[in-house]
Amino acid sequence: MTSLFQALFEPRRIALIGASADPTKTTSRPQRFLRKHGFTGEILPVNPSRGEILGETAYKNLDAIPGEIDHAYILLNGAAAVAALADCARRGVKVASILAGGFADAGAAGASLQDELSRIVRETGIRLVGPNSIGTVSTEPAVALTANAAFAVETLRRGRWAVVSQSGSLIGALLSRADARGIGFSRLVSVGNEVDLAVGEIADLLVDDPNTDAILLFMETLRDGERLARAARRAHAVGKPVIAYKLGRSSIGQELAKSHTGAIAGSDATFDAFCQRHGIARVAMFESLIDVPSLLVNRPSTRGKRVAVATTTGGGAAMVVDNMAMAGLDIAGPPRVLVDWLKPLGITAGDGKLVDLTLAGAKPEIVAGTIERLLADEANDAVIFVVGSSAQFNPELAVEPLLRFAGSAKPFAVALTPAAEKSLALLTAAGVPAFRHPESCAEAMALCLLRQPPRQVTAALEPSANALGALEAGRVSGFDERRAADLFAALGVPMARSMAVPDAKRIAAAVAEVGAPVVLKILSADIAHKTEAGGVALGLADGPTAAVAAREMEKRVKRHSPQAKLDGFLVQKMERGLGEVILGFRRDPLVGPTITVGLGGVLAEIYKDAATRLAPVDEAEARQMIEEVKGLATLRGYRNLPKGDLGALARTIAAFSGLAHKAFESVAEAEINPLLVKRDGEGVVAVDGLVVLR
Amino acid sequence: MTSLFQALFEPRRIALIGASADPTKTTSRPQRFLRKHGFTGEILPVNPSRGEILGETAYKNLDAIPGEIDHAYILLNGAAAVAALADCARRGVKVASILAGGFADAGAAGASLQDELSRIVRETGIRLVGPNSIGTVSTEPAVALTANAAFAVETLRRGRWAVVSQSGSLIGALLSRADARGIGFSRLVSVGNEVDLAVGEIADLLVDDPNTDAILLFMETLRDGERLARAARRAHAVGKPVIAYKLGRSSIGQELAKSHTGAIAGSDATFDAFCQRHGIARVAMFESLIDVPSLLVNRPSTRGKRVAVATTTGGGAAMVVDNMAMAGLDIAGPPRVLVDWLKPLGITAGDGKLVDLTLAGAKPEIVAGTIERLLADEANDAVIFVVGSSAQFNPELAVEPLLRFAGSAKPFAVALTPAAEKSLALLTAAGVPAFRHPESCAEAMALCLLRQPPRQVTAALEPSANALGALEAGRVSGFDERRAADLFAALGVPMARSMAVPDAKRIAAAVAEVGAPVVLKILSADIAHKTEAGGVALGLADGPTAAVAAREMEKRVKRHSPQAKLDGFLVQKMERGLGEVILGFRRDPLVGPTITVGLGGVLAEIYKDAATRLAPVDEAEARQMIEEVKGLATLRGYRNLPKGDLGALARTIAAFSGLAHKAFESVAEAEINPLLVKRDGEGVVAVDGLVVLR
Repeated sequence: MTSLFQALFEPRRIALIGASADPTKTTSRPQRFLRKHGFTGEILPVNPSRGEILGETAYKNLDAIPGEIDHAYILLNGAAAVAALADCARRGVKVASILAGGFADAGAAGASLQDELSRIVRETGIRLVGPNSIGTVSTEPAVALTANAAFAVETLRRGRWAVVSQSGSLIGALLSRADARGIGFSRLVSVGNEVDLAVGEIADLLVDDPNTDAILLFMETLRDGERLARAARRAHAVGKPVIAYKLGRSSIGQELAKSHTGAIAGSDATFDAFCQRHGIARVAMFESLIDVPSLLVNRPSTRGKRVAVATTTGGGAAMVVDNMAMAGLDIAGPPRVLVDWLKPLGITAGDGKLVDLTLAGAKPEIVAGTIERLLADEANDAVIFVVGSSAQFNPELAVEPLLRFAGSAKPFAVALTPAAEKSLALLTAAGVPAFRHPESCAEAMALCLLRQPPRQVTAALEPSANALGALEAGRVSGFDERRAADLFAALGVPMARSMAVPDAKRIAAAVAEVGAPVVLKILSADIAHKTEAGGVALGLADGPTAAVAAREMEKRVKRHSPQAKLDGFLVQKMERGLGEVILGFRRDPLVGPTITVGLGGVLAEIYKDAATRLAPVDEAEARQMIEEVKGLATLRGYRNLPKGDLGALARTIAAFSGLAHKAFESVAEAEINPLLVKRDGEGVVAVDGLVVLR
Repeated sequence: MTSLFQALFEPRRIALIGASADPTKTTSRPQRFLRKHGFTGEILPVNPSRGEILGETAYKNLDAIPGEIDHAYILLNGAAAVAALADCARRGVKVASILAGGFADAGAAGASLQDELSRIVRETGIRLVGPNSIGTVSTEPAVALTANAAFAVETLRRGRWAVVSQSGSLIGALLSRADARGIGFSRLVSVGNEVDLAVGEIADLLVDDPNTDAILLFMETLRDGERLARAARRAHAVGKPVIAYKLGRSSIGQELAKSHTGAIAGSDATFDAFCQRHGIARVAMFESLIDVPSLLVNRPSTRGKRVAVATTTGGGAAMVVDNMAMAGLDIAGPPRVLVDWLKPLGITAGDGKLVDLTLAGAKPEIVAGTIERLLADEANDAVIFVVGSSAQFNPELAVEPLLRFAGSAKPFAVALTPAAEKSLALLTAAGVPAFRHPESCAEAMALCLLRQPPRQVTAALEPSANALGALEAGRVSGFDERRAADLFAALGVPMARSMAVPDAKRIAAAVAEVGAPVVLKILSADIAHKTEAGGVALGLADGPTAAVAAREMEKRVKRHSPQAKLDGFLVQKMERGLGEVILGFRRDPLVGPTITVGLGGVLAEIYKDAATRLAPVDEAEARQMIEEVKGLATLRGYRNLPKGDLGALARTIAAFSGLAHKAFESVAEAEINPLLVKRDGEGVVAVDGLVVLR
């Protein structure tokens, strides 16, 4: 029986439902491209009005085709496409693809048609690519099952990287850009609206593909995050990098992706968190999708970030270095042995941090000898050679001597400053990672050295009975501040001592209980912004003062929010810390539970200085988050400021992230603001928080 | 008499001093390249040992050449080059260029040779390009006076943009990259170490060059800032953009530029300030140097930042939009008239912000009709069309219909998603700005719409007698805090009320004078960090308390800094504000006096949130600086926080920037920290400051 992999990538019998004999029509393309690029299996055009199409026997309908069908490409629109999918399912077709758009990408009417597709898939078990899929292509064996005009190219270059794209047209862009520099692909899949087979599952299939060494993703949204996470982890384990370009770094871009695909938009920071957690390398430049893989294939992990740079063009190398430094890499100077070796050749290295052989040093033996010595040096973690004009006219001088370093144990890359197609092709063919732009060279090297392996997924702790009770209480009565505090305390978050009282008469006793000075807050599940409602008073020195303040507060709040049901007051010990932190928990529609740590206060908000991770996190990951928040330098001992208790902060972040457990699924969002961080050894304490249910 | 311009760019009689007959030698190249690319004037090789070189009569020495010499290219090294320059000067050669490096770029010995060159230039008036100049090239008339191997190309493409580069080898990179996409240059100048003719003066010559429409600069440092500023302003006035790529955005890159060229490194922010002040467009991507000009030529000023985007590839356009939004541009949706026109054609526009014609709309009349309507729409300021796969195989569909929009009144650009060389060449030849990368398309559009025209240079106010007196007093006695305060006050900076007293006995009287509560500070020009020395006490409520505090302080400081000469105390009224600002003044080695405004406090320091400008600034520019500092949102009414007196702040910034006047040349740096900003209408007040003399 044909496997999903075979039916998708290497089908032998392909039905083309709605194939056209008119070569100007898009629906004629799959048949033409299949033959043009050497498909050796059977093509089975289906068309009720013709007995033959472009030289192949045509069938009136699917049932007229004898034998098994591996893959059917449905080239009909709308309701006809839905009917054809049902036919395919009935007929036992393993995988169907649908070309047409006009489903969820086109408003309400389309969405209900798409629901029909979902239902057929669910009920029959047929596997579907699309709708809105411009096709699935393999280069070996050649199966160009696509309506993408970009495959009108004369020859389809083979390669060992696979592309999975949520945009059909950008497959053409990648194909042509890669081809122009001598790079081919193993598979190219346009996943369209992902009713069934989505980026994650296809990437997962590619992990086991012997023809594929790297998996490149062009993404507009994320529909099967769990599956993609699994694929990325498995890919990492076998040394296949997963590299993603994703739209939506700006909020306008996010809206566009949404309107363009009918998809939900998540936040860009959470997608970054997703990539980081699961070891996906995210690139910022589109061109990097084809520039970066060569440096990452079979390099699952590296140790340091020191890059040695040699060159025949000082200015060109300086551009690469400038960009690498901005990306967080360090530059390593040349070893003594290289400096000594170059000296009698009249080349002075060692003044600056890069080895400038100058044009005079553009000689095969000098170039090779330099790279050899740099690769052997333990004081660097990677080596880059930047070639100037000689790459354009005399590849034999400084490019050919580099070819033998292909496959070096240490990462080695070449950047070319001129447009030097021949040199680029030589390097690419030999398997030496080569770059045309200083920016993408730096981006690739940064990803090669700085990206983290997938992180062990921390299981959320089983919630205590206390925590479940607190959740239940909040669900029943609504989550006011006190209920939120109960839940957070049960999770293990240290909360400021406090006491809820039903009315102003009990205030003085409560102050005696929690200890003065106190903060007084109105309790009401109906009031989201207590300060604005006049429902917060700070620094009340004793019981009587607090009691007076409570009566005044009640009047103010009633004037401000006459409809709100008031549940009394919260009397809370007034706490002080060295600094304030905000913890946020949120279930992201795309990636699931996330946790965010930021510095408290209005400045941190303005600077958008926060670290986000998939939740839950363990203490080690929480420490990493703390390191990432720039403003927390103020608690890390910056300028001799006293150090905060970052250990307690990390424990608290980890505890709070326990909300990711499925028992808390009804919690859409939660926030602690502020969490006060005290001196090292003195802990942290949360003074306010909120819980939002779905 | 030959002008400098002619001698540099269009010489008719060129001496090649040290020319070689051996075609494998670099020194043979100028002669070969001149002839190869069609130089029609006289080549005069100078070589003591040959009567003929590569078919031209050779001369034993310069004196053997009859008649005038416009330009001499000295191909000798070291001391021989120096001697040749002296010969040229004696012989009345108008301009000499020197190929060899090994001068200031190569340590102390080289630097003293370079001093010799300077001396000859100074004493004789000969003009010099280099040393370390790989040559000067014009394409019309063809004068390829260069030793750059990149000019081994078969034909030298003409064009209307000029390149001035501090890196010789990157001229080759630009030449080949531009040529590969059908772009040529008017002039290409390698300025080398800039002993005499530097980037600014050459750019200034190019402003008047009828063959040049845009001036592109590759910079590692800045040696003649005033001249470049003048050139950029004149260029702006005649509609010629000046576009600069500069190394040194990272600190490692800055160090490199320094070691590579022997130049002084300024800070990157001050170079940005320089570009902004004088209307220079600075690009971040190297490739942008050739991508960006087409969109800026003859577009001196624009009004808005709303870009309309139409496309045949939703994904490709989304990439452009995402990058534009990150660069600060807005996206404008389609006008009603376009939506209505497309509807009967079966194309739905108007849902998202971009007009997606889809592949179905890739037809000449639809594409042209769409662009026409977008260009006519007053709700946008510029239009971009993004072409997908059809650009690769069928330029007639969606590329050819774009050609007629070349020269549109409104900025119009095209981005191509596939590698589509033919389409790119078509667009370029027609004069339609065309882009291969979504990133550089966005960068170009952002520069086109957001860059500011050169700003009127504000003359520093003539300093008052008071200010000059305060400066003199500080120079004589050293600038302690009180002297600094006197100078700032004389410039017009409101200072906290204060009084200096020689000893603790006079404290109480001083408190009565300035008003309690007070701050007490030790006075000593020998103590830079008063707080650390125990020399500051805050919030002293009355005279007696302050007097006690003063005696204690004196003891502490004497223990901490036994050598320091103490000059008594400063009693200062304790002031409060809504926020704290830092003002910094500094004479930058490259761009001259600069002023920096930042938010006070440790967080602003961590986030490096500051605005820098060339000093002096007027109030309007100071207001712009205030807007640029993100953290000052806290004083602009963010989240209903009370507004600060930003008018008074702007006035104070402008007043402080008066230090740029040449009368204060001895002031290397000055700082006010903090400047307290009070509520709107209540002013600002400086409480501490320092002055550092050169």
